[in-house]
Amino acid sequence: MKKINIGICGWGNVATGLYKAINKNHELIKKQANLDICIKFIGARRDNPKCNPQDVEILRDIFDVTHQDIDVVVELIGGVETARELILSALKNKKHVITANKAVIFHHGDELFNIASKNNIKILYESAVCAGTPIIKVLQEELAGNKISKISGMLNGTTNFILSEMEKGADFDPTLAIAQEKGYAEPDPSFDINGIDAAHKIGILSYIAHGTSLPPQKFYIEGISDITSTDFKNASDLGYAIKHLAVANQINNSIELRAHPALVRKESILASLQGVRNGIEIDTDLVGKIHITGSGAGQESTASGLISDIIHLSNNNIPLADNTDEKASSESLKEFNTILFQNYFSIEVEDDKEVNQKIISEADNNNIKIEEIISNKDKPSNVYFITNLVKESEASKFLKQLKVIEFVKDIKRIRIESE
Amino acid sequence: MKKINIGICGWGNVATGLYKAINKNHELIKKQANLDICIKFIGARRDNPKCNPQDVEILRDIFDVTHQDIDVVVELIGGVETARELILSALKNKKHVITANKAVIFHHGDELFNIASKNNIKILYESAVCAGTPIIKVLQEELAGNKISKISGMLNGTTNFILSEMEKGADFDPTLAIAQEKGYAEPDPSFDINGIDAAHKIGILSYIAHGTSLPPQKFYIEGISDITSTDFKNASDLGYAIKHLAVANQINNSIELRAHPALVRKESILASLQGVRNGIEIDTDLVGKIHITGSGAGQESTASGLISDIIHLSNNNIPLADNTDEKASSESLKEFNTILFQNYFSIEVEDDKEVNQKIISEADNNNIKIEEIISNKDKPSNVYFITNLVKESEASKFLKQLKVIEFVKDIKRIRIESE
Repeated sequence: MKKINIGICGWGNVATGLYKAINKNHELIKKQANLDICIKFIGARRDNPKCNPQDVEILRDIFDVTHQDIDVVVELIGGVETARELILSALKNKKHVITANKAVIFHHGDELFNIASKNNIKILYESAVCAGTPIIKVLQEELAGNKISKISGMLNGTTNFILSEMEKGADFDPTLAIAQEKGYAEPDPSFDINGIDAAHKIGILSYIAHGTSLPPQKFYIEGISDITSTDFKNASDLGYAIKHLAVANQINNSIELRAHPALVRKESILASLQGVRNGIEIDTDLVGKIHITGSGAGQESTASGLISDIIHLSNNNIPLADNTDEKASSESLKEFNTILFQNYFSIEVEDDKEVNQKIISEADNNNIKIEEIISNKDKPSNVYFITNLVKESEASKFLKQLKVIEFVKDIKRIRIESE
Repeated sequence: MKKINIGICGWGNVATGLYKAINKNHELIKKQANLDICIKFIGARRDNPKCNPQDVEILRDIFDVTHQDIDVVVELIGGVETARELILSALKNKKHVITANKAVIFHHGDELFNIASKNNIKILYESAVCAGTPIIKVLQEELAGNKISKISGMLNGTTNFILSEMEKGADFDPTLAIAQEKGYAEPDPSFDINGIDAAHKIGILSYIAHGTSLPPQKFYIEGISDITSTDFKNASDLGYAIKHLAVANQINNSIELRAHPALVRKESILASLQGVRNGIEIDTDLVGKIHITGSGAGQESTASGLISDIIHLSNNNIPLADNTDEKASSESLKEFNTILFQNYFSIEVEDDKEVNQKIISEADNNNIKIEEIISNKDKPSNVYFITNLVKESEASKFLKQLKVIEFVKDIKRIRIESE
């Protein structure tokens, strides 16, 4: 039986979860993966009252872990800059690195993978995207024979939970409060709500599938805080659900990177995924469309992803392809303004008849086609419509022009994601 | 860059698909997997008019491929006994084996894996289950830190296509004809329709997840040919869809292996998966429930799974855990008769009032609880009901007793799958 010695850096929720999972399933992992995982050191600035590891040596200087006689440093301290330094120290000491830290991979991936590659050392990060739900190594190995065109999905459980509840009729603020109560959302939920967390994750997936840089040079990010119950009602009448989508889409040699709310057809699999779960659609040339859904967070799920990295490390004799050689040039990243979308517009008006004519004439002036302006049955002040495929920059310009029309009180646009 | 030399045995649809996919994505695979896949030999009894491989040596005796200077024999001849002999010949000649052949793995897996393991040779078979949709290596590696309790899903595209169409109102026979026309079903569709194909696949997944034998010692298999449009209507009124489920379920140390039609809650993800696609639900202790869906057949999808095996082989220095050491004893396989199910019963009657009383009294005699006997609004001769959780043997006995009640013309039972 193989044996692997690991040092865990950090001693918060994720780290204690890994410790507990390895202890719980130690015999099972021996049997299923022919591997004895031995936790030799824990780097913890202070004790964690929730977990007392009696059998493992604790080092109070977390950086000390990287100098020990171990095979792997598991970086679970979180944050960006100190985590980067810790990983650099591990690489310098010829230790493989496993991390669940999406932010450090997103911001410093190119630098870290380059150094690791030069030293024939591996950095694995399955849990950085969707925790233990298998996606990173599925892209790196299972689908490595495929050309992957589009990856899209709900990569943030908090926003998917909030939007799912709003779809059932709840309002944004009380739903966010419930999400915080249930532990789905952080006390400061801005990274989730504003789309940053989902952007980090799709940036990492695009690095694997499309060879884009980490950090990526261009990225459009928009959060969910503007979505209202009226939008859900209108979208539903049109046959759509509203999701916060993270998208990496390669068309020819041009790559779109974006994370924003989008209307998706109700009958699509992505639309059907409710609640705190993550869901990904991968569009490939050989297998076609694949969907993977599962938990995107949580102590145990994250531990599963970390253990899969440890197992992978023990099985492999060469680094996974890390896209360090040939990068997609930053020119291949598409300007967001040039992407074509159909758009849903929702407008609060004081006198809808007159305004409708002005909207149509403004659309005509901009060469934008509107099939029909629909009056909200339940809310007389609200009208909505869908445009034809329009360049993002043109849709933005149109939005600005509509805003200054007399009697238009408020206006909202949500892009529609094509299948 | 690594290089791997392969010999392809067989030259039908799957083999030519692999040849074309490797040629199409050769440069991409070099870049994404750091691997140069070189097809050195093709073992083909005769030419295939659809594909002319000018650059590869053809051997008319397929067994000759196993003696050549190659790293891997890719077995794509299909069938069971000759395929077994071919694999044995490859193992004897110290060649790794990759196969898409679920039947040979199901029937001879234990023997083949044992010999391979003793010789430190690998047999990989990602495409044997759900073609290129990632599942085998997800279980073997990504989820190897988890205790997997239940695997369930639609593992046969033909039956899922037929049942999806029937759910929309179509009848069985014309739908089967359409499936054959579209190439979803074989000219002889009995392996699909009777549940054998799905049983092969779940048997292989249970071998990986639960350590059951190949072939398994106990297995309950039932096909879909008895399902009628009336069943769909009644199930729908009760809040259920009807799917052909393949299930491997470990409860404590007892394992259920079964493939049969089942009612599943409409709001479940499995119920939402329509058409020819495969869908799997994996219940794990750390990650919770994971769903994976994708194409379960097709030339290109199968090629993707085969290529993933080739890549895996090139990356790994030791065999994947093959469960050859510790097998689940055959006693741990649960007798199907002892499994508890709720059951849907649908009965064709001549005079429903009197019969209803007899059914209820028969249920009482058997200690079976029925909430309500419902009369089919559209079909006066039909009544249906759902039982409480009843042991399979008791439900069978009840079914037999109902059959002989006067005025009962026909009777159908479908098990209900609990969440």
